[in-house]
Amino acid sequence: MRTLLIAAAAGLCALVATASAQQAAPAVAPIPLAVQANVDRLQKAAAESSTAWDIVEGLTTEIGPRLAGSDAEARAREWAAAMLRRQGFQNVRIETFTEPYWERVSERASIVTANGSQRLVVVTLGGSGSTPEGGVEADVVRFPSIAALTAAPAESVRGRIVFIDEVTNRTQDGSGYGAGVAKRGLCAPIAQGKGAAACLIRSVGTDSHRFAHQGGPSRGRDGATLPAAALSPPDADQVVRLLRRGPVRVHLEITVKTAENVTSGNVIGEIVGRERPDEIVVIGGHLDSWDQGTGAIDDGAGVAITTAAARLIRDLPRRPRRTIRVVLWGSEETGVHGGGAYARAHAAELPKHIVGAESDFGADVVYRLSTNFGEGALPYARAMQRAMAPLAINLGPNTAGGGADVGGMRAGGVPVADLDQNGWDYFDYHHTPDDTLDKIDRAKLNQNVAAYATFAYLAAEMDWDFRKAAETPAPSAK
Amino acid sequence: MRTLLIAAAAGLCALVATASAQQAAPAVAPIPLAVQANVDRLQKAAAESSTAWDIVEGLTTEIGPRLAGSDAEARAREWAAAMLRRQGFQNVRIETFTEPYWERVSERASIVTANGSQRLVVVTLGGSGSTPEGGVEADVVRFPSIAALTAAPAESVRGRIVFIDEVTNRTQDGSGYGAGVAKRGLCAPIAQGKGAAACLIRSVGTDSHRFAHQGGPSRGRDGATLPAAALSPPDADQVVRLLRRGPVRVHLEITVKTAENVTSGNVIGEIVGRERPDEIVVIGGHLDSWDQGTGAIDDGAGVAITTAAARLIRDLPRRPRRTIRVVLWGSEETGVHGGGAYARAHAAELPKHIVGAESDFGADVVYRLSTNFGEGALPYARAMQRAMAPLAINLGPNTAGGGADVGGMRAGGVPVADLDQNGWDYFDYHHTPDDTLDKIDRAKLNQNVAAYATFAYLAAEMDWDFRKAAETPAPSAK
Repeated sequence: MRTLLIAAAAGLCALVATASAQQAAPAVAPIPLAVQANVDRLQKAAAESSTAWDIVEGLTTEIGPRLAGSDAEARAREWAAAMLRRQGFQNVRIETFTEPYWERVSERASIVTANGSQRLVVVTLGGSGSTPEGGVEADVVRFPSIAALTAAPAESVRGRIVFIDEVTNRTQDGSGYGAGVAKRGLCAPIAQGKGAAACLIRSVGTDSHRFAHQGGPSRGRDGATLPAAALSPPDADQVVRLLRRGPVRVHLEITVKTAENVTSGNVIGEIVGRERPDEIVVIGGHLDSWDQGTGAIDDGAGVAITTAAARLIRDLPRRPRRTIRVVLWGSEETGVHGGGAYARAHAAELPKHIVGAESDFGADVVYRLSTNFGEGALPYARAMQRAMAPLAINLGPNTAGGGADVGGMRAGGVPVADLDQNGWDYFDYHHTPDDTLDKIDRAKLNQNVAAYATFAYLAAEMDWDFRKAAETPAPSAK
Repeated sequence: MRTLLIAAAAGLCALVATASAQQAAPAVAPIPLAVQANVDRLQKAAAESSTAWDIVEGLTTEIGPRLAGSDAEARAREWAAAMLRRQGFQNVRIETFTEPYWERVSERASIVTANGSQRLVVVTLGGSGSTPEGGVEADVVRFPSIAALTAAPAESVRGRIVFIDEVTNRTQDGSGYGAGVAKRGLCAPIAQGKGAAACLIRSVGTDSHRFAHQGGPSRGRDGATLPAAALSPPDADQVVRLLRRGPVRVHLEITVKTAENVTSGNVIGEIVGRERPDEIVVIGGHLDSWDQGTGAIDDGAGVAITTAAARLIRDLPRRPRRTIRVVLWGSEETGVHGGGAYARAHAAELPKHIVGAESDFGADVVYRLSTNFGEGALPYARAMQRAMAPLAINLGPNTAGGGADVGGMRAGGVPVADLDQNGWDYFDYHHTPDDTLDKIDRAKLNQNVAAYATFAYLAAEMDWDFRKAAETPAPSAK
């Protein structure tokens, strides 16, 4: 009954009124008044805080680009550990791991004709091999999709430069990226299998600027070694226009550097729980970035949002019951190496991981809380959403992924959540030189901080078990 | 009286009603009905035409970047002459001239620290010298303006890399550019005079993208040979943030190529007048572009707009009385070489030049007709504006410049006009790699065509003398 009253108060009157006797309003876990007061306090403090901004400003300015496994990423780890200590975190440490290394050294592409050439803006895709000295030069063969390349006979591809001309659709939830990204990883192995000279793709991006979008694994998929690069959207348009006029010949020269067993690492800091320190709520972002931009929206923002959220919780009069662990993962971009290493290193501890969530979708506002909880634990999801309602956050489906670096935990049975951000503009900047600090809006960044502070605080303060419904009565107010 | 009635019909009732007996409504030259019918026809045809789009699409796709004096510019001349012939122009010709040549071959800049470096997005400014082999490396000294650099003692500058950190204001009429551009040409000579190692400027641009804006003369001003480059706006921000933390050291390596007496040229085509072929109305754009973009808005659009406008006039049942000459100037960007060469080559003919106007401010809509006519000829300006009113074009001041390439004509006494375009976004793309075809809106491009067709047709059909009021009665309707 109390639950019903709260639901009505929260504006669900209409829903309740139309519910039949068989369809009771969804149960919402109660939040004690003292806990709600702390939520209000966190949200107010987040709106006025400069912590997240200062963190992303510092990381992008003092370190800048920080490619997975590079010296710059190592500097970022030292920077982050010092920053976490300065912010008052406990148990600050760097957990290293090793991984294969890939770096683009140079790339150069031109359309060549009998009379001259035109430079193309390209970026080498992660995992690409180098071209032979002097580059490759061949006619371009265009395919509208990976499916069309797959279906094409090898003789139409052999010796040519494959061009996958698939557009990325703009969406709020990133689903356009999910659909468009297949070509980035699959072009090289499929084209190589058919004897192509190289692979070009229209950038996986929604803008129309002269930036090529990076991406890809640290090493070629399925053993692919084919040189592969992305064209900026206007350059892809240019190739398309020229193909309408006749054959197009492209010269492509790529040099990459690879190494084995380079060091990367995750940086960790904690707000140790006052009652159940062994129960862990994980939030975080990834520390590495691609090397064209300074990694502001991907993922300096996630590092800043989650660290600032935990810091605000630390500033409450007393620490929450459970431990909040901020994990700043290394080497996400080139294969989610940090997320995998974390899950392996903490395998024994995963049953005590209460919930995990990574912020890795830019710095625009959170509009939805999605979860991946046990069905019986959905009253907790509803209660969390209700606490975030003042931030204009709705409840999403119970099919959340939690973020790439949380995948290992999720596979280990840890419940996860997504604080879904508006991604309408995200793929305008994603993996381009244009991913810089000026693309972040302070007020939107702080809305994220408020959302993560609410999420992490409730997860750490309440006795909620996100695997299943609580077996004991809801805890009384403090 | 007839004039007053037309004024009232055009919606000037309020103005007329409040005019005192001493302040008569401004005189407006009459336009015969048959001429007005052709204006209506031109404006309708312009809205439905694909000519301008096809021209700018062709030039930017088939030629691409076309640096002043380069082989690409020579190809653009051949392309343009063939295009003018195909469009039915008469007396199509290339008028060559020679000029000093400057080309950036490569540039590379980084912030260097004890622990590593961060790449900066820069572009070498026109007229820059090369750095010594291996580049220059020095501490940065920031100045908020050229005035501050001018006032600084030489010892604060000597051996350092000067950084002029002046912002370009966004305006509709380009006045922000006029104010901001001084630093581009003056940094090198002033900094060199004080013994600086190099010169960096915040790009003369209104965007916040990772593009550096080119610009500058073909050779160093006042004999300056100092290496000089522009930083993209986010890179300038990065340097500013780092300077707040302490000294900033930059490594800059620039290689340029120069030559003497290279060939450039103006491409000319005409619609020969049916009654007074020796009287010439000049419209045009410049054919060259900087080499990062494909010169779509600067100035493929101007080439396309003015050519398409003249072509529409050619398609009227009979040609206008006077000759319309489309001039596609060469080598504007590096010092208005084509405009100067045209004025010299046609000096004897300038008294027969009725009016001149260059389209060189992008592809956004024309919002205003500004003139530089004799005071007594203002009734013609008002009549032209009234004919353009359906295109939402107002009357501007009588202080027009006519465009850079028209400067030589104007100095020779030729009346000029500006069909002022909305430049709000122009300096987001200007002189960057992002000046590509996708930045042009077809409908806006065609509004420009309609405006230029109206302007050129009236100037060529009517007996108007823009130097002074007509001494004879207005011509009767055809």
